[in-house]
Amino acid sequence: MGYDSTVKKMETHIKLLTKVKLRKPVLVEGLPGIGNVGRVAAGYLINELKMKKFAELYSPHFLPLVLLQNDSIAGLLKCEFYYHKGKTKDLIILTGDTQSVTPEGHYEISHAILNFATKLGVKEIITLGGFAEGQQVENPRVIGAVNDKKLLKKYQKFGIDFGKEHPIGTIVGASGLMIGIGKLHGIDGLCLMGETLGMPLLTDPKAADSVLHVLVKILNIKVDMQKLEKTIGEMEQRIEQTDKIHKKVLSDMSKGQKSEDIRYIG
Amino acid sequence: MGYDSTVKKMETHIKLLTKVKLRKPVLVEGLPGIGNVGRVAAGYLINELKMKKFAELYSPHFLPLVLLQNDSIAGLLKCEFYYHKGKTKDLIILTGDTQSVTPEGHYEISHAILNFATKLGVKEIITLGGFAEGQQVENPRVIGAVNDKKLLKKYQKFGIDFGKEHPIGTIVGASGLMIGIGKLHGIDGLCLMGETLGMPLLTDPKAADSVLHVLVKILNIKVDMQKLEKTIGEMEQRIEQTDKIHKKVLSDMSKGQKSEDIRYIG
Amino acid sequence: MGYDSTVKKMETHIKLLTKVKLRKPVLVEGLPGIGNVGRVAAGYLINELKMKKFAELYSPHFLPLVLLQNDSIAGLLKCEFYYHKGKTKDLIILTGDTQSVTPEGHYEISHAILNFATKLGVKEIITLGGFAEGQQVENPRVIGAVNDKKLLKKYQKFGIDFGKEHPIGTIVGASGLMIGIGKLHGIDGLCLMGETLGMPLLTDPKAADSVLHVLVKILNIKVDMQKLEKTIGEMEQRIEQTDKIHKKVLSDMSKGQKSEDIRYIG
Amino acid sequence: MGYDSTVKKMETHIKLLTKVKLRKPVLVEGLPGIGNVGRVAAGYLINELKMKKFAELYSPHFLPLVLLQNDSIAGLLKCEFYYHKGKTKDLIILTGDTQSVTPEGHYEISHAILNFATKLGVKEIITLGGFAEGQQVENPRVIGAVNDKKLLKKYQKFGIDFGKEHPIGTIVGASGLMIGIGKLHGIDGLCLMGETLGMPLLTDPKAADSVLHVLVKILNIKVDMQKLEKTIGEMEQRIEQTDKIHKKVLSDMSKGQKSEDIRYIG
Repeated sequence: MGYDSTVKKMETHIKLLTKVKLRKPVLVEGLPGIGNVGRVAAGYLINELKMKKFAELYSPHFLPLVLLQNDSIAGLLKCEFYYHKGKTKDLIILTGDTQSVTPEGHYEISHAILNFATKLGVKEIITLGGFAEGQQVENPRVIGAVNDKKLLKKYQKFGIDFGKEHPIGTIVGASGLMIGIGKLHGIDGLCLMGETLGMPLLTDPKAADSVLHVLVKILNIKVDMQKLEKTIGEMEQRIEQTDKIHKKVLSDMSKGQKSEDIRYIG
Repeated sequence: MGYDSTVKKMETHIKLLTKVKLRKPVLVEGLPGIGNVGRVAAGYLINELKMKKFAELYSPHFLPLVLLQNDSIAGLLKCEFYYHKGKTKDLIILTGDTQSVTPEGHYEISHAILNFATKLGVKEIITLGGFAEGQQVENPRVIGAVNDKKLLKKYQKFGIDFGKEHPIGTIVGASGLMIGIGKLHGIDGLCLMGETLGMPLLTDPKAADSVLHVLVKILNIKVDMQKLEKTIGEMEQRIEQTDKIHKKVLSDMSKGQKSEDIRYIG
Repeated sequence: MGYDSTVKKMETHIKLLTKVKLRKPVLVEGLPGIGNVGRVAAGYLINELKMKKFAELYSPHFLPLVLLQNDSIAGLLKCEFYYHKGKTKDLIILTGDTQSVTPEGHYEISHAILNFATKLGVKEIITLGGFAEGQQVENPRVIGAVNDKKLLKKYQKFGIDFGKEHPIGTIVGASGLMIGIGKLHGIDGLCLMGETLGMPLLTDPKAADSVLHVLVKILNIKVDMQKLEKTIGEMEQRIEQTDKIHKKVLSDMSKGQKSEDIRYIG
Repeated sequence: MGYDSTVKKMETHIKLLTKVKLRKPVLVEGLPGIGNVGRVAAGYLINELKMKKFAELYSPHFLPLVLLQNDSIAGLLKCEFYYHKGKTKDLIILTGDTQSVTPEGHYEISHAILNFATKLGVKEIITLGGFAEGQQVENPRVIGAVNDKKLLKKYQKFGIDFGKEHPIGTIVGASGLMIGIGKLHGIDGLCLMGETLGMPLLTDPKAADSVLHVLVKILNIKVDMQKLEKTIGEMEQRIEQTDKIHKKVLSDMSKGQKSEDIRYIG
């Protein structure tokens, strides 16, 4: 008898639900963060374009819990990949319930996504987030960052603020790491951040709307922009549920548990 | 001379004590948690059915200490697997001293258990826990969650509350992760949570009793339910000992050390 | 160009300085802990028996710093293995600067030591520690714990308190884990704990003296016990230096950073 | 379908930008720390000697964020290797944005650097840091530590204080670990620490100047020492940006999050 052989660990992994073949796919990331800007914008596009889910990501770096859907159906925290066939190029959207709760996990998960994206032929990534302005903003700007100087020209016509007058010095979490690691993979990366009040988990439709307007122009797709508030209403239950979780994570962070700058998380 | 080759790490592993061959085994998990509901219910069944231990689980994600039994016999913290031969299908019960002290450890341990269960032919898992109501409950409900919608029908006749009026949004720890990861393994999962006051480590016999009544009906086994209080009395020393440990773990968690929702841990 | 292959990680490893061949070696562990009982007792035996160092253990789970010796010679934190050729059986003593700062590290390091001990033919381990009584003790008892019931008889004649009247429920750290993991390796394990006031890092010569008296009887060796205080004086600089470090570690623990019971650490 | 194979983790790795062949290279480390002494001194030499970058180090043990350069160009946190061809021996300088945020990461990163250095033929390492005196210092001493006694003689003529009257007992972080691990690799190691007030992240040009004066004598290179303040001015933006990050890391540490002695970090 004695010892059994050690069981393989659960690692961050991506479960493919459907094999897809995509043309020049652009990957857009919208995960929970400041003002839920990225997540709400991503969710809206998925709804409007009736995008299909084709893969899920699981990780031991998420909180160790399950969420209850419709009050009784339990599921692991996960991220989800959706796709949409475009006229000249296809679209992948990554959204999900959560981000990593450990620094190492952030790198591991972003790296796993980049590996997967590379296999799918992705050459361009756009990450979405909010930028906490600290005060009410009437007409939220969309602030941008790229992972290569040459991209400034490519994106200059879309009304993105790449200027020096904004105070962003760092981008924390997936929105930052995905374009940072993307550069090492030779993938072009753009991060779009909508100005928002910055209460970490107060969903901000205005900021999401600003970001969406820029995004659809870049992607050159047609989307009815009138239904955002309605869609946010429909996403409410799921958002509230995970917001409660993230509030704890963010509050832990702000106690200095994780050395992250809350202000720019996205 | 020079360096020795690096020694293999101690990983989460399961030590098989006896080879067993089981027919359609159902795995029931009852580890320490809110009100000790799961652990006490599991311990009672093990006693009443005179179940035999056949495997032990050790993990570096447990607290780094040994417990002293009968005051002088030291042993590592561990989880234990017991089995019982039933008429038509067999029963496995997983109980133990502790749960993981790290988020990643929770995933690793639940994953290891699921791998082991799969090898034993398990197709159905029932996890037991407490649900902290925050106030004294006269007749504790048994609240349920499943890992697949189709299971709601299967379990509807057992008096489990799958309704929307209860406030559970997440299930933290092994009770949640085992059914969440179980879904990825194609294993049916049910979590039964007994309503309890919710003082984290105050053993609640009433809640355990409620859960047990539902459980024996599902398992279709006959168990004398009169001796629960007596059995809890016998388990007292071991429970007290590990409670002291868990109190520290839970208190650390509530300080935001681990980003877990204490309320639903089980 | 592109990426270099990833460099191998630094793992817990043991560096062999001299190949030794030992007869029925007994391994005695005395690492820093409550009252420095184990460390001081180990250091005294090493001095008195003029034992020779033959191996060193390094680990990424120690604090990330170097100690300065004689004020200018820097060295990594490490544990050290010494040996002594006895008449009928040989002796190995493990002592060192520190213990792990992470829970997983405690398991990893104890596991590494056990693997090494097994290769050296060790079948018996004695770990040394302090037990914090919380008050001044005139004649400190030596409290014992074993990893197998059958050992109680073997050690009963040495004046060790295996009784039920002492309040020890857990043994935290290497002293506990080494006998706990030892059991899984089929190695007999005894832990000797000297009663002490329990100021974590106030060296307690009296408790060390009590433990030493029991230990030399068990090992059946002759050691002049008169020079303990003098030896402690000589060890002072190194002890003070690492005490300063451990004070921070222990203080972090007591803030709930590590979920360990300070009281019994050894 | 089912599971994809798990994606390879992102590990600490070094990306080679240019293949270089170096003669008897000396590796000088200057990473962020107390008074930014090492980083500023390293940056000055890189500027004055017009050194060329040939490799970059990335690690999941850095903070999970990207820095924005010129306000819009995002890049991962990284360390950088520069080289300079000397008359009789070549020089490598390692500098960067940050150090590890976890204890294990400190070991892993220092180990990765040592492995890389060994492949490049490095036999001598000099690490630079600040030593927090706790008060204003008029003429900052340069305090030294070596990883082998024999080196005291080699470095005795350079005005380094190896005496016993200074209160340094430990060196935390890369400056310490690199010479500590270097010893295991058979590499000579010297750590130079400039006395500074010790406000963790207040750049101290005077201390950097003292360290630089000693360093150029050891390296036997000619460098115009007049432009230090000017160069610091030019490095300001980058330093400020990462200082903000490190302030959080250090503040977390000082809350006991990481058990490190802030006073000697370098």
